Amino acid sequence: MSAEAETLHIDIPEYMHKVGVRARAAAREIARAGTGNKDAALIAIAAAIEAGADELKTENDKDLAAGRQHGLDAALLDRLELTDARIAAMAEGLREIALLPDPVGSISDMNHRPSGIQVGRMRVPLGVIGIIYESRPNVTADAAGLCLKSGNAAILRGGSEAMHSNQAIARYIHQGLTAAGLPADVVQVVETTDRAAVGELIRMQEYVDVIVPRGGKGLIERISAEARVPVIKHLHGVCHTYIDDMADVDKAVRVAVNAKTQRYGTCNTMETLLVHRDIAARVLPRLAADYLAAGVELRGCEATQKIVAGITAATEADWEEEYLAPILAIRIVDDMDAAMDHIARYGSDHTDVIVTESLPRANRFLHEVDSSSVMVNASSRFADGFEYGLGAEIGISTDKLHARGPVGLEGLTTLKYIVIGDGHIRT
Amino acid sequence: MSAEAETLHIDIPEYMHKVGVRARAAAREIARAGTGNKDAALIAIAAAIEAGADELKTENDKDLAAGRQHGLDAALLDRLELTDARIAAMAEGLREIALLPDPVGSISDMNHRPSGIQVGRMRVPLGVIGIIYESRPNVTADAAGLCLKSGNAAILRGGSEAMHSNQAIARYIHQGLTAAGLPADVVQVVETTDRAAVGELIRMQEYVDVIVPRGGKGLIERISAEARVPVIKHLHGVCHTYIDDMADVDKAVRVAVNAKTQRYGTCNTMETLLVHRDIAARVLPRLAADYLAAGVELRGCEATQKIVAGITAATEADWEEEYLAPILAIRIVDDMDAAMDHIARYGSDHTDVIVTESLPRANRFLHEVDSSSVMVNASSRFADGFEYGLGAEIGISTDKLHARGPVGLEGLTTLKYIVIGDGHIRT
Repeated sequence: MSAEAETLHIDIPEYMHKVGVRARAAAREIARAGTGNKDAALIAIAAAIEAGADELKTENDKDLAAGRQHGLDAALLDRLELTDARIAAMAEGLREIALLPDPVGSISDMNHRPSGIQVGRMRVPLGVIGIIYESRPNVTADAAGLCLKSGNAAILRGGSEAMHSNQAIARYIHQGLTAAGLPADVVQVVETTDRAAVGELIRMQEYVDVIVPRGGKGLIERISAEARVPVIKHLHGVCHTYIDDMADVDKAVRVAVNAKTQRYGTCNTMETLLVHRDIAARVLPRLAADYLAAGVELRGCEATQKIVAGITAATEADWEEEYLAPILAIRIVDDMDAAMDHIARYGSDHTDVIVTESLPRANRFLHEVDSSSVMVNASSRFADGFEYGLGAEIGISTDKLHARGPVGLEGLTTLKYIVIGDGHIRT
Repeated sequence: MSAEAETLHIDIPEYMHKVGVRARAAAREIARAGTGNKDAALIAIAAAIEAGADELKTENDKDLAAGRQHGLDAALLDRLELTDARIAAMAEGLREIALLPDPVGSISDMNHRPSGIQVGRMRVPLGVIGIIYESRPNVTADAAGLCLKSGNAAILRGGSEAMHSNQAIARYIHQGLTAAGLPADVVQVVETTDRAAVGELIRMQEYVDVIVPRGGKGLIERISAEARVPVIKHLHGVCHTYIDDMADVDKAVRVAVNAKTQRYGTCNTMETLLVHRDIAARVLPRLAADYLAAGVELRGCEATQKIVAGITAATEADWEEEYLAPILAIRIVDDMDAAMDHIARYGSDHTDVIVTESLPRANRFLHEVDSSSVMVNASSRFADGFEYGLGAEIGISTDKLHARGPVGLEGLTTLKYIVIGDGHIRT
């Protein structure tokens, strides 16, 4: 049945309302489930995915065929494809989530107050998490696993181009949940490709506690603008590396080359290099040689063009651009304050780096740069849930409230206050 | 100049845009200000308020006169009035904030990763906080003090009925900031009573990081619906006390009487009492006598009416009602699960209490009730920033994301990741 035909038979608000009611009920169950049960479910889902690998590839082939028919480009088709290696990685990811510590129920800051009561905080699930994502079907398993381990119910809404793959993965998830004695409704994968379902999902405040959109900037901005449910956003990364005049040149070259060239399409890739004027002549020629050898196009300010001949002139637009490509903007600055001003003005508060041997400079940069990750003498490419030890991430938040930077299991939970008395009253 | 005349001369979007630009610049300054400077400013503001007490009362008299002319009721006029005692309390509140530990810059969870980098988290201000509040002018000083100490810039928008009082307090705040060498723009009090200013404030995403509305449910719902900036909400409190069959009757009576009668108009006052059927006959007659002696109207379920004769029958609407008045709904339940089901269905996730001597029951209630404060054997009236040791609160959040329950200095900050390497790159 085509997506178009399907939508004729479903009343979307009614359907999503039912999904919401079931998610809310399942959220109460999974919030009180033991760690052992949740881990057993994760392991059972991994096994079901592996056992279903051939069937899953058959379903994935339907999506790929439809994608080719609709003229999806090669990059999109690649993201959509489930190879044996990718299926194995999906199952392995779930087993790794099972090995992570359970954040739910931990109690912190328990103190006696002068009134005689004890006050502390307990980590608890958020409740129901709605996840809206694009073509990669592995997100279905990853997101389900993170929500399940953190004690949340999930409503997943994948891209229409991955519909068959996502529904197959949903069946394995339900098998695993059921095998572990947990309600299948803990993870619901929306069964319609009608866009109206997204509109309902992001407005169902009584049933959904938070929305996590995963995809391009356009998708995330649209959802943020229309949502009534709070959104954990992952917008863009205009990441900077600032090479201070107190930098070690070898470290600066190593870090700045890695930050740009290790991968071009990721949000933690450096887009603008800022260089102190007193070190520019020593560091820029070496860097330029490495970048050009790697095929990176350089765009520089006037001062940069005097040191590195023949490169393009950077315009105002370059300072704001997230290239996600082998292009780098370079600007020479008078001092660290000028670098921090540039970052405050043009940055996206994602990840910014200083290279310096000076402790006071490092300290000031760490304290004053207002980004989700601030680094000293390290490549911005480290801004990642696995590298930070979170084990896995549902995204990298560019919000300030709640979770900032890579969001792992802890970011999918919250703290409530708990109070223990023995008949205490307020006077 | 009347509020109406004033609005004729101001282009509101242009005015608020300027306020936003100034706040953003001031936020960078106050974020890096030392604790000593911030505390000096708080103490200087307190002194300026005390020195200006007579002038402040003159300005307050203008608001009171206008309020009487506009027919404000006695309760509103009382909230608006600044007596000598209230002015002294405002100054004292600021000195208490100066004594609290500074949350900004503290580093936690610093660990070495296998890659060689060190990863930790630093507590940092949110940036610019917009506060929208109603008649009480003391909020101007309280909110300014909390934002200042937590390293944030504040844009305050008080009620039009307190305009003269708020502008006078704003002058003392600016005197104190200037005396401590901090920019006056750290705290801006909006100078127009035009409602369009609120509309601008809650949509200026580039200048404002969070909105904290303080006021009635109507105000907060309206702002939440229209805001594009994230909102820390303080909605209503339908708080429950559940008396378990394993409760100590003396403690149950003490806690349940205090939870209802200590103050009627606060969000942490009990609105519904749930009683296990096996203890109802022992506890309800004593409680009813105390409530009736205090002048509390009782509304009970059928089973309650059989034990406490002559009371009103509770309807479905009573279970959802935040009375904020000497009225109490009472329901007899079969067991703790029924009590928790009732709370999940009708509660507002604010504060809920169990009275029991049973450790397993207490544990289950603490873990499974999804409210911002969950208590054992203590009055719900303890749900308060001062009682919890936060020192002061900007509100009690009924949200799940970011801050849940009483919001003090920590709730006005966030955590960013910091990474220290020595030339480390990702491979």
